[in-house]
Amino acid sequence: MTEYKTGTYLSQITIPQDMRDKFALEDLPHISEDVRQYIIDVISEIGNSHFGASLGVVELTVALHYVFNTPYDQLVWDVGHQAYGHKILTGRKEVFPTNRTKGGISGFPKRSESEYDTFGVGHSSTSISGALGMAVASNYKGEKERQHIAVIGDGAMTAGLAFEGLNHAGMLNDANLLVVLNDNCMSIDPNVGALREYLTDITTSHTYNKVKDEVWQLLGKISKFGPNAQAVASKISSALKGSLLKQSNLFESLNFRYFGPVDGHDSIALAKILNDLKDIPGPKILHCITMKGKGYKFSEEGDPTKWHAPGIFNKETGEIVKVVPSSPQPPKYQDVFGHTIVELAEQNEKIMGITPAMPTGCSLNIMMEAMPDRAFDVGIAEQHAVTFSAGLATQGMIPFCNIYSSFMQRAYDQVLHDVALQNLNVVFCLDRGGLVGADGATHHGAYDLAYMRSIPNMIVSAPMDEIELRNLMFTAQQENMGPFSIRYPRGKGVTTNWKNRMKAIPVGRGRKICSGEDIALLSIGHVGNFCKTAVEQLKTINVSAAHYDMRFVKPIDETILHEVFSRFDHVITIEDGCLMGGMGSAVLEFMADNNYTSRVVRLGIPDRYIHQGTQEELWAECGFDTQGIILKVCSVLGVEPHLKNRLAGGMK
Amino acid sequence: MTEYKTGTYLSQITIPQDMRDKFALEDLPHISEDVRQYIIDVISEIGNSHFGASLGVVELTVALHYVFNTPYDQLVWDVGHQAYGHKILTGRKEVFPTNRTKGGISGFPKRSESEYDTFGVGHSSTSISGALGMAVASNYKGEKERQHIAVIGDGAMTAGLAFEGLNHAGMLNDANLLVVLNDNCMSIDPNVGALREYLTDITTSHTYNKVKDEVWQLLGKISKFGPNAQAVASKISSALKGSLLKQSNLFESLNFRYFGPVDGHDSIALAKILNDLKDIPGPKILHCITMKGKGYKFSEEGDPTKWHAPGIFNKETGEIVKVVPSSPQPPKYQDVFGHTIVELAEQNEKIMGITPAMPTGCSLNIMMEAMPDRAFDVGIAEQHAVTFSAGLATQGMIPFCNIYSSFMQRAYDQVLHDVALQNLNVVFCLDRGGLVGADGATHHGAYDLAYMRSIPNMIVSAPMDEIELRNLMFTAQQENMGPFSIRYPRGKGVTTNWKNRMKAIPVGRGRKICSGEDIALLSIGHVGNFCKTAVEQLKTINVSAAHYDMRFVKPIDETILHEVFSRFDHVITIEDGCLMGGMGSAVLEFMADNNYTSRVVRLGIPDRYIHQGTQEELWAECGFDTQGIILKVCSVLGVEPHLKNRLAGGMK
Repeated sequence: MTEYKTGTYLSQITIPQDMRDKFALEDLPHISEDVRQYIIDVISEIGNSHFGASLGVVELTVALHYVFNTPYDQLVWDVGHQAYGHKILTGRKEVFPTNRTKGGISGFPKRSESEYDTFGVGHSSTSISGALGMAVASNYKGEKERQHIAVIGDGAMTAGLAFEGLNHAGMLNDANLLVVLNDNCMSIDPNVGALREYLTDITTSHTYNKVKDEVWQLLGKISKFGPNAQAVASKISSALKGSLLKQSNLFESLNFRYFGPVDGHDSIALAKILNDLKDIPGPKILHCITMKGKGYKFSEEGDPTKWHAPGIFNKETGEIVKVVPSSPQPPKYQDVFGHTIVELAEQNEKIMGITPAMPTGCSLNIMMEAMPDRAFDVGIAEQHAVTFSAGLATQGMIPFCNIYSSFMQRAYDQVLHDVALQNLNVVFCLDRGGLVGADGATHHGAYDLAYMRSIPNMIVSAPMDEIELRNLMFTAQQENMGPFSIRYPRGKGVTTNWKNRMKAIPVGRGRKICSGEDIALLSIGHVGNFCKTAVEQLKTINVSAAHYDMRFVKPIDETILHEVFSRFDHVITIEDGCLMGGMGSAVLEFMADNNYTSRVVRLGIPDRYIHQGTQEELWAECGFDTQGIILKVCSVLGVEPHLKNRLAGGMK
Repeated sequence: MTEYKTGTYLSQITIPQDMRDKFALEDLPHISEDVRQYIIDVISEIGNSHFGASLGVVELTVALHYVFNTPYDQLVWDVGHQAYGHKILTGRKEVFPTNRTKGGISGFPKRSESEYDTFGVGHSSTSISGALGMAVASNYKGEKERQHIAVIGDGAMTAGLAFEGLNHAGMLNDANLLVVLNDNCMSIDPNVGALREYLTDITTSHTYNKVKDEVWQLLGKISKFGPNAQAVASKISSALKGSLLKQSNLFESLNFRYFGPVDGHDSIALAKILNDLKDIPGPKILHCITMKGKGYKFSEEGDPTKWHAPGIFNKETGEIVKVVPSSPQPPKYQDVFGHTIVELAEQNEKIMGITPAMPTGCSLNIMMEAMPDRAFDVGIAEQHAVTFSAGLATQGMIPFCNIYSSFMQRAYDQVLHDVALQNLNVVFCLDRGGLVGADGATHHGAYDLAYMRSIPNMIVSAPMDEIELRNLMFTAQQENMGPFSIRYPRGKGVTTNWKNRMKAIPVGRGRKICSGEDIALLSIGHVGNFCKTAVEQLKTINVSAAHYDMRFVKPIDETILHEVFSRFDHVITIEDGCLMGGMGSAVLEFMADNNYTSRVVRLGIPDRYIHQGTQEELWAECGFDTQGIILKVCSVLGVEPHLKNRLAGGMK
């Protein structure tokens, strides 16, 4: 071998088999270095990606693909934002720079993208159950040698689904399942919970391993006090071996064989132990200690939450490129939420804040710092977050339970059964409602308006802008409101002047934004701003559209609806949510129940999965951005093409 | 004290304070005996209730209310079908015979029913999260002495939500939370999973406790070998105490203090230890061994699954009263499912069956017996059941994942994210779709048509009768169907002649049951039978109604809908599911998208929680039974009152 030069190893690898064919065990560190450098090179330039998580598993990725016969052996990455190395090593090196862009590769493993992506992921903690299903199927098919590996973070391990998977796997002694616990002490924010403390205990060896070793050594010493002592010592030893030590590990309690902790950045040692584990039957767990952001000076030394998804950065200096806008910009909805809950909680001592592992993403960290006894990160545990909130509410608290819309899907039953059925005052702040952009299909908050609307007692609302968000939050924290959901989108709002003095909005009352003659637009949430622009532009071709911001999907404003259906033959509903069962359907239900017969056209997310892209691209794809609304108005009203085209051409 | 006579203790107790005021510790066994006898007396006569679970916790119930200052101290019963003793001791002794009937008391704790019911339950595994919320609120309010107790079964402990609660509680050292693990080795069926095996290990003392004791004793012996040996032994002892033994229990790993196992039928000992535990701060768990059906000869000796909810029985002989019908009866939908899946699996080796802890309730036990390697009970773990099925499907299997509709709510995200997004061939057999009767609001399968319909790729179907169920199952197990849901109701079908030769139904095709002129009825699922009867009766007053069994809510049969909306001014949709977003809304969406303007009236479950009653009572309450349909047809068509009344009076 000639002297190592960065990139020379990776350049010889298209798929994992290349690595197995061309390289020896001792080459793994260089392969790892190449993969890491390539990730740094690409992500620093394209931005818009996750970063620290993939750096943390480079050695693990290389070792797994080197040892296991992928794709025959089946590798499931939990969550999947750490799988960039995996993508690079499995035929997607060249397209990696298209990561998370429209038409490019997904930021997560995806079955339709590669046969190496055995299980589509995005939400956490699915890997054990998925891989167990594969293992059971292999057994049934007589493929006894086939290996099934779930790589799961310590954060993801706190979710109930992971535990359910462990509990089932632990009783299937013939399931060829290896769980690799990628323990980096983090979810996106620092991981929390008793399990986290327990893993730290194991890892720091103050307890489990150290004591295990010590006790064996001491028993050895005792044996020197003569044959009787020796006999007793041996009896203790076998008692301990047979039971206590066997059971002294949480995972062993669940009938997993536990190995580790091992250094997750030693690719050679990892490959060796993974190879050994191939021959050990049944469910087993390998506990790897890794570091998020490993191998890049600035992410190693910096704040791992910041380096989770840093955007574009200068790879030499570690400086994250911030585009400084020339004028003041509107805040993110997230930050408006974060500041407003503190403002409200200062006035109302009943308010508490709950997040399942998303304090930074949701900006509840502002309250957690300001009021640590009233704001809780409960770990990746959406179900618990909701039922815990229900418990708080029974005692007269008013919990604001802040969850991404798509993650709230995981607590649907708890919302229905623990909160709404008991009519408890829990405020659900559904962050990232609607299309979220680069995270793609797994993360779009497409369904919440529909699934929340079916739940009795639930108030379903969405603000059109930051001021409305604040007013809805103010409204929701009043006494005896019952369950109240407020959904708002990912990203930037529309006004810099958002720190209004808050006021209550009557529940179920929308507002007229603009009068008009020819057609009525009924919008919910942020898309009202698209309508507003559309209405202005339509005026230039003499189309007069009325616009109503409904604010509430439930109870829906019947006064507005009576007015609209009495006056307009043509109505368009607009929402950043699924068309099947969403606000548009609520409007149709009202229309049917009240014998109106206007023509209603519904704009929203169609009945298919929308993949990644920028939010602007996706809103356009679904046809409910400003241009989409204008085109729909023109087509409904039969506006002459030359007029329509005048607008369509001039629009951004 | 005079000699004990059954009932004399309970007769002096209306609320728990009576027990504390009037009785001494040694009276608890007699109180328990009274409570148990009262449960046997009442349930054997009224039937329609759970039984074994409540018998199993009589002593625990008595001890808890004796020791704790309920309702100030807060007691949360997980699931709640074991809380009859609790209801009897907390002011509801007299109304207990109305259990689970319309207008009577609920079969589960319910906040609106009593201040002693601190948390409404029905679905499993919510108690730890709920009680933890209460404990955190108490802390915040400075109520440091207030006690919070979650009573949870070993079956419920396998659900992810329980683990999420433990993980959060374990890091809150000041949360005054006691988890009472009611370990009877059962959910409704025998409990399964690694945790179950672990608890058995602890309990049988072959390992944890016995070894702990033995090791302490042996270390004592070693000390006799002289001062040096003594020093070493003491060092071992403290190493073990400080770490291994502390951590050698799964619950202790999660930072709970573990106590037990103790005999859950010794009320005096229970009261003593509960009293001691009051003074121990932080999260703690008391492991109680109980027996389902305890204290009644026949349930103790018989099959606990049978005695879970036996119906009416002769309390002297243990004979369960079976009404023997004079003619052959249609089978339950459950049994049709159970026999049919075996029949299909014999032909199609890809089929597997999965149930989360409901083998008997869903009749998957038939397949589990016939094909043990292809049918799995995964424990109370709906999320895992779905994602595990997804894993199986990636390997070409066709899993039938069989879950109660209301429990499927707990796996909504897994259906969407792990199955439908990946377009995997998983067949969801949603049992107990629609109003279920006596179990009440927590158990009605009201929402599945709405929440399934919003999910892209999902086929949403419901059979009108047993033969249709079989045909839909046959259809679903064909290649490349993608996600396919079939929902059917609780209880008896409509035909004894159900063992048809199965045939495939084209996906998305409904069928015309009956032609007519005046109005069209569009039904989905079993309510089609109500329509059928209604149509016949309407003929007698010269109303001619067409009737279509839609079969599929998605894809909906557009050919039928075009026919209907072209020909009928009046359309009624009928479904045993929520009106908000259900099949009726799908029909309205079609109508709007295709510019039809007929008048559509939707019948279904209204937007409120429906409480318990017989299914017939509840269908009538919601207005979609035969009579409800007839009345609605008459009111839509403006049928003269005397004609309408002729029918309404004569109807059953």
